[in-house]
Amino acid sequence: MIKATILPRSDCAYNRSMGEKNRKSRIAITMGDPAGIGPEIVVRSCIELNRQWVDALELLIVGRTSVIQRAVEMLGVADTWRSLSPSISIHDVGDRAADDVKPGEVSAAGGRVAYEALKLATLWAVENDVDAVVTAPLNKAALHAAGIMVPGHTELLAQFCHVSEVGMMLHLPPSNARSEQHFPLGEIGLSVVHVTLHTALRNVFDQLTTAAVVEKIKLIENFCSTLLKAKQTARKKPRIAVAALNPHGGEDGLFGKEEIEIIRPAVEQGLQLGFDVTGPEPCDTLMRRAALGEFDAVVAMYHDQGHIALKLLDMFATVNITLGLPIIRTSVAHGTANEIAWTGQADCESLNQAILVAHQLASAP
Amino acid sequence: MIKATILPRSDCAYNRSMGEKNRKSRIAITMGDPAGIGPEIVVRSCIELNRQWVDALELLIVGRTSVIQRAVEMLGVADTWRSLSPSISIHDVGDRAADDVKPGEVSAAGGRVAYEALKLATLWAVENDVDAVVTAPLNKAALHAAGIMVPGHTELLAQFCHVSEVGMMLHLPPSNARSEQHFPLGEIGLSVVHVTLHTALRNVFDQLTTAAVVEKIKLIENFCSTLLKAKQTARKKPRIAVAALNPHGGEDGLFGKEEIEIIRPAVEQGLQLGFDVTGPEPCDTLMRRAALGEFDAVVAMYHDQGHIALKLLDMFATVNITLGLPIIRTSVAHGTANEIAWTGQADCESLNQAILVAHQLASAP
Repeated sequence: MIKATILPRSDCAYNRSMGEKNRKSRIAITMGDPAGIGPEIVVRSCIELNRQWVDALELLIVGRTSVIQRAVEMLGVADTWRSLSPSISIHDVGDRAADDVKPGEVSAAGGRVAYEALKLATLWAVENDVDAVVTAPLNKAALHAAGIMVPGHTELLAQFCHVSEVGMMLHLPPSNARSEQHFPLGEIGLSVVHVTLHTALRNVFDQLTTAAVVEKIKLIENFCSTLLKAKQTARKKPRIAVAALNPHGGEDGLFGKEEIEIIRPAVEQGLQLGFDVTGPEPCDTLMRRAALGEFDAVVAMYHDQGHIALKLLDMFATVNITLGLPIIRTSVAHGTANEIAWTGQADCESLNQAILVAHQLASAP
Repeated sequence: MIKATILPRSDCAYNRSMGEKNRKSRIAITMGDPAGIGPEIVVRSCIELNRQWVDALELLIVGRTSVIQRAVEMLGVADTWRSLSPSISIHDVGDRAADDVKPGEVSAAGGRVAYEALKLATLWAVENDVDAVVTAPLNKAALHAAGIMVPGHTELLAQFCHVSEVGMMLHLPPSNARSEQHFPLGEIGLSVVHVTLHTALRNVFDQLTTAAVVEKIKLIENFCSTLLKAKQTARKKPRIAVAALNPHGGEDGLFGKEEIEIIRPAVEQGLQLGFDVTGPEPCDTLMRRAALGEFDAVVAMYHDQGHIALKLLDMFATVNITLGLPIIRTSVAHGTANEIAWTGQADCESLNQAILVAHQLASAP
């Protein structure tokens, strides 16, 4: 295991701007909160991905070397870890207090190291020294304990990148041998973007505007187009469906007017932009139709519409992606899971998929 | 095929009040709207269930003999149909206009016969001449064309039975050979009741009261207790979970106060009643936990919470059950599907399960 100082991209053997084909993706992975499952899933993912992807990935772990080493020992994988490719390296941030954070403990030191790791990784990405940032989970309460008063990763990323409008998306990649998917999905999986997200259901009605829906249609159209390009599919236009807000799609105004007044006009604007977009569709049957491969993407109106579906489709392979940033950023779609942290039970499939989707996005022509 | 006049239960060989064990369940099945998939799924279910359940079920189809005969011919099952047990009979209601309703056509005649069938079947059940009513789908627009200005079955049933408070529940029975379930569920399947249902999402906030949540907890507790009895399980208390309204369960008031002010007090009242009830639980992970068998029942706050989950878990085996009536009533959980009606494509699994759940409820000790 080499503890490297990151080289500016311009000095790298595989400089993207030089236009090599099939060059490695250089991906920064933040360790997350040391009290949670972040360190152990980072170790597991590096080991699992190293086998098959050693020629495609350069992974830069940003966190604490001593915490990662502790996770390696807890998992009993010291020999494997030592034999890993030199394309995997650890980069220290924060201070030594983070090394002693106990499993499951909410601490300022844990919040601080998670914050510092995200900041450095984002800076690298903004300066094009890495191709993408992938994040392991942090703990909001720990962030607050460290005096960083934001709800989570997304707001910090927006701040570091100086953007105001970002969209959080869930992406379920196409099935692989390890996934638990029982639906075929489309060839680029299923992506779900939410028009409103971490807000009370009662506030959805104020936040739901035609402009907001159009914005999310554009973001997800752009994202899915990149995936289609990366897959070099014959089909170029993503098939996008917009969910209704009300049961049965409002039944022509009987159960609410938002479909008629807000959502349908947004779909029409999407069509005018030349997109393959349909809706509003009643969300219960829509999620099933999408899972069966009829759509590449769903624009959901609020948190639970998308999350109920994806947690049932595949709890572990879902990836969280931030749209609207100047950098590629993916993340696990779960939290720190403090109740099982440092017991070796945590599943790293979401992190695997987050890294692989980041690689796919970084390699798109 | 015997076209029987229904015998009052007191004249029957298997009078429930005489207390025989293992007697047949006598179940009235309404044909639904003749333009929809009702007639063909009724025929299919009778044939499929007759094989395995001939000693357990007496099925009384309420509708139009000539429509059922037409469905038999369309399906090419005339020989099988003639050889069916005499425990399957057809009872005519409505008028001859219903015989000529075209596939997919919304008509007053179709609405009228669906209405008359439901009325007669309910009357039989109220007078204890049948053990349960199972309904095939009707068409709301056809009801309206016939001058019957109600949204659907549930309101008519409440009216015929002279009750004001009913609850609509979705029930997914435990997996069988034909089902598409990939989750284990619990031993009595998964039941979901909705505190609010066919109303705009915007109206949920006014309808959501502690009393309304408690009412639904009671209804589903009673229902699941009956199922546990019918299954003669060691466990007597259903495990009930109450969903949160807001994302992440409101995060202690950060994303909405309904969990603290309305739902948690309802859960506490349920506990005081001696029920095994937990919540409010964030609904996205809750649905997955329930599907994995951790709960027998979920109290959902609004339509899409329950429906998104069940349509992904098993589109075809889900049964619709009306709680709070003085009779047993189950139904398919889908509509008339006019776009595929009379083509022979319709799946009868939901109707099969609706009949079998009705039988189970009717046979509970």
